[in-house]
Amino acid sequence: MTAPWEPDEALAAFADLDLDRAARRGYPEAVYCRGKTAEQVGLIAGALRGHGARTLFTRAGPEHTAAILGELPDAFHYAASGLLAWPPDPPDPVGGRVLVVAAGTADQPVAREALLTARHLGRPADLIMDVGVAGLHRLLRRLDVLRTARVIVVVAGMDGALPGVVAGLVAAPVVAVPTSTGYGAAFEGLAPLLTMLNSCAPGVAVVNIDNGYGAGHLAAQIAAPP
Amino acid sequence: MTAPWEPDEALAAFADLDLDRAARRGYPEAVYCRGKTAEQVGLIAGALRGHGARTLFTRAGPEHTAAILGELPDAFHYAASGLLAWPPDPPDPVGGRVLVVAAGTADQPVAREALLTARHLGRPADLIMDVGVAGLHRLLRRLDVLRTARVIVVVAGMDGALPGVVAGLVAAPVVAVPTSTGYGAAFEGLAPLLTMLNSCAPGVAVVNIDNGYGAGHLAAQIAAPP
Amino acid sequence: MTAPWEPDEALAAFADLDLDRAARRGYPEAVYCRGKTAEQVGLIAGALRGHGARTLFTRAGPEHTAAILGELPDAFHYAASGLLAWPPDPPDPVGGRVLVVAAGTADQPVAREALLTARHLGRPADLIMDVGVAGLHRLLRRLDVLRTARVIVVVAGMDGALPGVVAGLVAAPVVAVPTSTGYGAAFEGLAPLLTMLNSCAPGVAVVNIDNGYGAGHLAAQIAAPP
Amino acid sequence: MTAPWEPDEALAAFADLDLDRAARRGYPEAVYCRGKTAEQVGLIAGALRGHGARTLFTRAGPEHTAAILGELPDAFHYAASGLLAWPPDPPDPVGGRVLVVAAGTADQPVAREALLTARHLGRPADLIMDVGVAGLHRLLRRLDVLRTARVIVVVAGMDGALPGVVAGLVAAPVVAVPTSTGYGAAFEGLAPLLTMLNSCAPGVAVVNIDNGYGAGHLAAQIAAPP
Amino acid sequence: MTAPWEPDEALAAFADLDLDRAARRGYPEAVYCRGKTAEQVGLIAGALRGHGARTLFTRAGPEHTAAILGELPDAFHYAASGLLAWPPDPPDPVGGRVLVVAAGTADQPVAREALLTARHLGRPADLIMDVGVAGLHRLLRRLDVLRTARVIVVVAGMDGALPGVVAGLVAAPVVAVPTSTGYGAAFEGLAPLLTMLNSCAPGVAVVNIDNGYGAGHLAAQIAAPP
Amino acid sequence: MTAPWEPDEALAAFADLDLDRAARRGYPEAVYCRGKTAEQVGLIAGALRGHGARTLFTRAGPEHTAAILGELPDAFHYAASGLLAWPPDPPDPVGGRVLVVAAGTADQPVAREALLTARHLGRPADLIMDVGVAGLHRLLRRLDVLRTARVIVVVAGMDGALPGVVAGLVAAPVVAVPTSTGYGAAFEGLAPLLTMLNSCAPGVAVVNIDNGYGAGHLAAQIAAPP
Amino acid sequence: MTAPWEPDEALAAFADLDLDRAARRGYPEAVYCRGKTAEQVGLIAGALRGHGARTLFTRAGPEHTAAILGELPDAFHYAASGLLAWPPDPPDPVGGRVLVVAAGTADQPVAREALLTARHLGRPADLIMDVGVAGLHRLLRRLDVLRTARVIVVVAGMDGALPGVVAGLVAAPVVAVPTSTGYGAAFEGLAPLLTMLNSCAPGVAVVNIDNGYGAGHLAAQIAAPP
Amino acid sequence: MTAPWEPDEALAAFADLDLDRAARRGYPEAVYCRGKTAEQVGLIAGALRGHGARTLFTRAGPEHTAAILGELPDAFHYAASGLLAWPPDPPDPVGGRVLVVAAGTADQPVAREALLTARHLGRPADLIMDVGVAGLHRLLRRLDVLRTARVIVVVAGMDGALPGVVAGLVAAPVVAVPTSTGYGAAFEGLAPLLTMLNSCAPGVAVVNIDNGYGAGHLAAQIAAPP
Repeated sequence: MTAPWEPDEALAAFADLDLDRAARRGYPEAVYCRGKTAEQVGLIAGALRGHGARTLFTRAGPEHTAAILGELPDAFHYAASGLLAWPPDPPDPVGGRVLVVAAGTADQPVAREALLTARHLGRPADLIMDVGVAGLHRLLRRLDVLRTARVIVVVAGMDGALPGVVAGLVAAPVVAVPTSTGYGAAFEGLAPLLTMLNSCAPGVAVVNIDNGYGAGHLAAQIAAPP
Repeated sequence: MTAPWEPDEALAAFADLDLDRAARRGYPEAVYCRGKTAEQVGLIAGALRGHGARTLFTRAGPEHTAAILGELPDAFHYAASGLLAWPPDPPDPVGGRVLVVAAGTADQPVAREALLTARHLGRPADLIMDVGVAGLHRLLRRLDVLRTARVIVVVAGMDGALPGVVAGLVAAPVVAVPTSTGYGAAFEGLAPLLTMLNSCAPGVAVVNIDNGYGAGHLAAQIAAPP
Repeated sequence: MTAPWEPDEALAAFADLDLDRAARRGYPEAVYCRGKTAEQVGLIAGALRGHGARTLFTRAGPEHTAAILGELPDAFHYAASGLLAWPPDPPDPVGGRVLVVAAGTADQPVAREALLTARHLGRPADLIMDVGVAGLHRLLRRLDVLRTARVIVVVAGMDGALPGVVAGLVAAPVVAVPTSTGYGAAFEGLAPLLTMLNSCAPGVAVVNIDNGYGAGHLAAQIAAPP
Repeated sequence: MTAPWEPDEALAAFADLDLDRAARRGYPEAVYCRGKTAEQVGLIAGALRGHGARTLFTRAGPEHTAAILGELPDAFHYAASGLLAWPPDPPDPVGGRVLVVAAGTADQPVAREALLTARHLGRPADLIMDVGVAGLHRLLRRLDVLRTARVIVVVAGMDGALPGVVAGLVAAPVVAVPTSTGYGAAFEGLAPLLTMLNSCAPGVAVVNIDNGYGAGHLAAQIAAPP
Repeated sequence: MTAPWEPDEALAAFADLDLDRAARRGYPEAVYCRGKTAEQVGLIAGALRGHGARTLFTRAGPEHTAAILGELPDAFHYAASGLLAWPPDPPDPVGGRVLVVAAGTADQPVAREALLTARHLGRPADLIMDVGVAGLHRLLRRLDVLRTARVIVVVAGMDGALPGVVAGLVAAPVVAVPTSTGYGAAFEGLAPLLTMLNSCAPGVAVVNIDNGYGAGHLAAQIAAPP
Repeated sequence: MTAPWEPDEALAAFADLDLDRAARRGYPEAVYCRGKTAEQVGLIAGALRGHGARTLFTRAGPEHTAAILGELPDAFHYAASGLLAWPPDPPDPVGGRVLVVAAGTADQPVAREALLTARHLGRPADLIMDVGVAGLHRLLRRLDVLRTARVIVVVAGMDGALPGVVAGLVAAPVVAVPTSTGYGAAFEGLAPLLTMLNSCAPGVAVVNIDNGYGAGHLAAQIAAPP
Repeated sequence: MTAPWEPDEALAAFADLDLDRAARRGYPEAVYCRGKTAEQVGLIAGALRGHGARTLFTRAGPEHTAAILGELPDAFHYAASGLLAWPPDPPDPVGGRVLVVAAGTADQPVAREALLTARHLGRPADLIMDVGVAGLHRLLRRLDVLRTARVIVVVAGMDGALPGVVAGLVAAPVVAVPTSTGYGAAFEGLAPLLTMLNSCAPGVAVVNIDNGYGAGHLAAQIAAPP
Repeated sequence: MTAPWEPDEALAAFADLDLDRAARRGYPEAVYCRGKTAEQVGLIAGALRGHGARTLFTRAGPEHTAAILGELPDAFHYAASGLLAWPPDPPDPVGGRVLVVAAGTADQPVAREALLTARHLGRPADLIMDVGVAGLHRLLRRLDVLRTARVIVVVAGMDGALPGVVAGLVAAPVVAVPTSTGYGAAFEGLAPLLTMLNSCAPGVAVVNIDNGYGAGHLAAQIAAPP
């Protein structure tokens, strides 16, 4: 508890790191950077390094990134998604295969955030891109690969129709991620979000708009080894 | 113009029939019954009979229907859609083929409203039902038929994904009709409406929720003979 | 394809049963009754009986139920959810444990729809009720049981806060089901739906409002045996 | 399928060009640039040039445009709409006449995107601007021209009333395009979108907000030669 | 102020009649019945009779109506709008002319509520019905009458386009009333409400959905004698 | 945890009564009846009687009420709000004064639910009705009484303007309750809810639409004795 | 009608000036600048100068302003509202008095746009600012002035409560203008818009969010001399 | 009242300072800076200094801040919230304890705005941060501190679940503040706003999105000394 007029900028004053989350939940902490100051993110990065705690940083802007790399210079950085991972190499993969499928090229940053999250959490994971429903033959051509997955993350904006179509073709559960790609009436991702929630085919679960991290995490849990 | 305290219930006091619409636009008048009293609809039916004017009555409830059949006893009546057509037989079909495709059995009343409207306006028209995207093979099996149409009306609720998938397979324009079928987050047809407006495949135009009449009319215009 | 003025009421005219879905996807067909006529549902029930195909009927009203029981008199019926299952006994359970957790007593019809669906699809499944976040001790007391599950379905209306709290306590993935329970600003389930999509804890996937069937199906897929 | 930590920037890793779309659907591919990187758009442009495939690029920002013109220096470019066409000259027009009608001067970028798309796809197409319903005489004066069209694309923001008024005057189908022009309660195009969906006159179909490309494409399909 | 467990049902316990409103604002009180019990409305009617206060009762259901007529047996009653006026005859009209214009027959109850309110408040008032924009000639034929009004109330559902079109033709101010008439995406009057707020032609002011009373009151104020 | 096909209807199977809530939070349990079966509510009522636990039942329909009165025949019942209290008499009041202020007569059921809840929880509480902002003099006349309260609950539908006006006149905090009273664009209470959240005067806190219980509870907490 | 690939930038190609609007409607044209290019606005300004037509330019950004002042160097310019008037001096005022009332200082740009529009159209007009409902005494102190007006324009953001309060105090009609001022749940003006539409006091008409021009125009029409 | 073409920039022309608010309501004025010009804010600051009136300035941008500090150079300034307080030191605290609890680090600016407001108004106030529901142990560890508060302000974005969980643990009233932190479907704070309004635990009142000032003010009123 901090009380003075001027905010206390020590780590304990603004953050209560959940370092035993890995023990309690089986998955390490992640740090959502948006809304935090670069100084705060840097202090968190330093503390995590001190504990040797495997961590993802999500939605990191350029200033956040500089602060993190100042503390963890060897962290892996994928700028298009604002993602950093430390240590830079993922663990050896265990469990079922995670397949990430993206409808369009513009969905790449979200799809790759899901892909990298699943690998960071220890799953074997692969990516297929540009298989939207406007050209079904592109999807049907990959049916064999789709059926090898333990779980499929499907990323789509605009009409958001791909997850329902994929779910109708496979036995694996589908984690659907709406993206904010599209014209006006996509309403920043609301349209594909609703489409996915109303999927005719059972077996589709939905996460937040553009939330590749959440989808990758959930997929890692679904594909966890027994 | 009518002015007394008590409403004047003569036809001229509440309706200004657009009897030359057939001449001006090439398509006859239709009467939207919801919100009118049975008496008003009956007076309109009588006036139309007097002019021998081909007419559809849409969204007719039981009292409307009774009033219409009182004036036009030989009218064709399809109760599930609240549709009546007079004279009962459609004209000999001319122009291109209209194909109506419905995703699920629950979409039948809207799909059939489109089908009957297109026939009433003089087009050859057919219906395919229960080809939703949860089982793509059902649609793909009909690819040959789909490609014979001059225009395809696609009716779907829930995720509303079918029109975009169909549009990606054919050269003909697709008229998409969202229906109010589905669970909570379909929000009475809002979800499929947005899906259809955001279709990845070009070639999809959208009409109002459950508006089979509007879709059938538009399709008849698109498939009109030169 | 059917073309006459009067609709053809034979099964083939309105439905294209996906009888090989069990082969293709590994899970049997379900019939969503709302929007279908009782006659249509009865014809479908008869056809399924003819194929001996394991089936769920969801959202069945009284007339649907009578038509189904006319064809499948031994079907199991749980009226509060409008659910019927045939054959009446679930298969021997295989795979991981599905745990269904409901925030309040009013969520029972949806929770039990998820429970029964998971069992019908062959999983061991149990139910815990009335553990909403207004009295956290009720949830914390069940921590040991929560941690035995392969997947947890969490059903909640009003603030929809329970799935995120549960996800923060366990390693298993959480399937969240918003319900339409609550006062005005719950907007028929929109409020808990948004809450669940915005869960602070990763590991939460969301299905449609009141969609216990979808949640149970997804849970069965997640907990499938290798 | 691509798997490494660092994304593979070769074309095959992020895009699966639908080069036989012209054969399958009768209309060539278009590339939606927003959300793609300039590098990706440049690679696509190069590949299309290699195949000699007629293409539109839509929603191209300055960096996209530079990358495209680097590969296709003779492409036609209309900056106000972010549109590029290659080859620069449209094919000789065939089929019915497409008429694009815009309510206000501010709707010009969307209207011209529709116009250019229709020409690029091979239709004769013309444009009438500034005929909004606040001064009906401007529209009524063009009635003769309106009645020569096989299909009319009507572009309007604010109240979005023009498409319904036009549809009431002609036999041709109307493709309505809402624009994001207007004061606060236009809600970025939501108001004219709803107006158009609720048009009193039958014969209006609606595409996405500001989607001139989609409207022009649909109009080209409707006006296609037999 | 009332305090006991059991509610006090005397008039003073639940209502504070604004009897000097006529003095303060120049217009008499109106009683909105919906949400009040029949007993409460009856007590109010009795008190108003005691004061001889000219009054309108709006949104009166059958039980409200019976209670009012029990106290004021000679009150004028127009059931379609749920409107009662007492004393039954309007005062001699003074001030400018109020013209009420309705787009469709289904808008009659709202239009007539506006008409009767304006007369009850002492204005000369007339009604024109069924002049929606789908057949512009019906409106243009009345241009002379439209231009005689001091203020025009325009009532429309569905696309709500009529007020903007009327405003573009006259010098008088237009009071627009959206109605809840229409198909799904009219969203119970939201669509015409937005259309009217976004009217391209200046000179349109909007009141609540289906609020004929409010429109008639406002028109009476605008057309008040100097 | 209950597991059989047929639901277990014993109390422990569906409810986990929070009987020590009075000890933990200082306020007794309340039972929200909507969504529960009459049987379930009856079982809960019986269990509470066994523990002698002071309880409110909210949103009780006729069947719920019968079940409750079967177990607790002396319970106080206020039908307009669907409220029952047991034991029937409130405790002797302690703490500051709660004043409930309602804008219109139609807000009475919600206002009285707040009043009775505050008394049931042990506060002195009074009610003022029909002081909406359309006639400010009615409110200003009560300024002395308003200033005696420790907390003021303000109940209003339609424009929801009253809480902000009251807050600008007093030192006490205001608890605002939007009601679902009003015409179309009140959208079942959304309009007054937003008004109250945006109050210009500080000192206004908002609860759910029509949630008189929540407002009365919160007021009792604010006015609690030291 | 213009047809070439490159847009024709002559005035006739993009605008159809409504120069006889003053004759037809009694009020001169206004030019809404947003969405037009500076070049287009400059061409329009030049044409209007050629006709000597009194004009307002609204929502003019810096580039629009420079183009207008290049053609009409003596135009009056009020930058905070993006308003220009030409000729710079308003006509001699005739008709009733227009009073513009603003709730807060932040509403000044919109309030002044209404004030200047009313004067430009020939009405005597005055402004009162900072009389929001959080301090009612500020408004009540001006009651005498309020009652001198023929029409009152009330401008308010946040809770939008002021128009209803003013309407309850006067006989004149109130034109309400919601502004986009406020915290998050004001949703860019949606909250005050809904408040105003739901005003308890009759006599309030609403225009679009931030639409000071529309309010001033309407007020000028209401206060027009006989 | 000011009337000339050019706005009068003297203080009296745009603001009517409510200097006796402290006397009338017991709490001093605050100045909401957004939407005011820097000049206006500077004039207000000067006038307040002249009266020696304790004041908060909220939502001050850099230009506002410079203008305020020009007049009140010793004002306290907390930039992250855009807050300035004058005089810089809060009064000696009286009344009950206010506890501000924030779910995440990103909620700090809003939480601290509440904290500083409560202190400025004379209450003892403390802050606890980063105790979101994803790691319940962090909250449960502070149960003793939570139970010492007279009122708790709970600040949370994303799922907004924390206020309901806190309310279920304590006797004190909870003031909930939704923040605009989060992914797409948080819709700028709409999601946590709805969650908080639907809290299962009674005792939660809600203020506007990001409105730390309003929450701190309300808390100061609730915790006021007798």
